[in-house]
Amino acid sequence: MAAPDHSVSLEDKFGLVAQHWSPRVVGEFNDLLVKVVKAKGEFVWHKHDEMDEIFLVTKGKLTIKLHDGDVVVAASEFFVVPKGTEHCPAAHEECELLLFEPAGVVNTGDAAPGDLTAPADPWI
Amino acid sequence: MAAPDHSVSLEDKFGLVAQHWSPRVVGEFNDLLVKVVKAKGEFVWHKHDEMDEIFLVTKGKLTIKLHDGDVVVAASEFFVVPKGTEHCPAAHEECELLLFEPAGVVNTGDAAPGDLTAPADPWI
Repeated sequence: MAAPDHSVSLEDKFGLVAQHWSPRVVGEFNDLLVKVVKAKGEFVWHKHDEMDEIFLVTKGKLTIKLHDGDVVVAASEFFVVPKGTEHCPAAHEECELLLFEPAGVVNTGDAAPGDLTAPADPWI
Repeated sequence: MAAPDHSVSLEDKFGLVAQHWSPRVVGEFNDLLVKVVKAKGEFVWHKHDEMDEIFLVTKGKLTIKLHDGDVVVAASEFFVVPKGTEHCPAAHEECELLLFEPAGVVNTGDAAPGDLTAPADPWI
C-alpha cells in the first residue's frame, strides 16, 4: 500500500471495528504494521516464540495474565510481553489498544487455531 | 535492560521530560525503542535515508512540513514519513509524541549536527 499523504486518526479507525480480538492494520512503517484492536472478555493463553509483543492501550484497561501474575495496562500505558512468554489478555470492559507487529503474525500465537484466531493483517 | 514487569505510564514518562526535541527511551521490543518526545517550535529540515519515521501524537498538535505541503497530526493520530523524505516537524504549542525507532538513530538525520541534535537513546 502506498504511503498515505495525511495523518491517520485512531478514533476514526477504531470506529470501523466492531469485532473483539480481531486486529486491523491501519498503517505501516519499515517492516512493521500498526494495528488497532478492540478487546473485551478473555482471549486465549498463547505465546509468540519469535516476537516481543507490545500492547499500547489507548482507551479502557487491559489485563495481561502471566504465569507470574497479572499486569494491568490502563489507557496511555504500554507493556511488552517478551518473546516466548505465555500470556492471556483479558478485559472486563471493552478497551482499545495498538499493536506493532511484522506482517504474518497469528494473533493466537502457538495456541490451537480457534474462534479467536483472526485473519492475518486485514487493512481498514 | 531487562524487561520491566509492570506497565509503563506515558504520562509519568512525559512528566520527566523538560527539553524539547530530545527523545527519551521508555521501552524496547524486538529491535525497536519506544521514545517519548516533547516538541515546541520548529525543528530542522532533515531526512532519514534508511528509515520510515512514525510520529504518533498523544497530546497537542504536530505539524510535519514536507516539500509537498504540511501534514497536521493531532492527538491520537499518527503519520509516517517515508524513508528519504525531507521533513521538518514543528509545533506552535507544546505537544507530546511517540517514536518507534531502532537504536542509534540521530534525531536530526542527515542535517548538520547542531543544537537540536540529541544524545542517542537515553533511557528514562
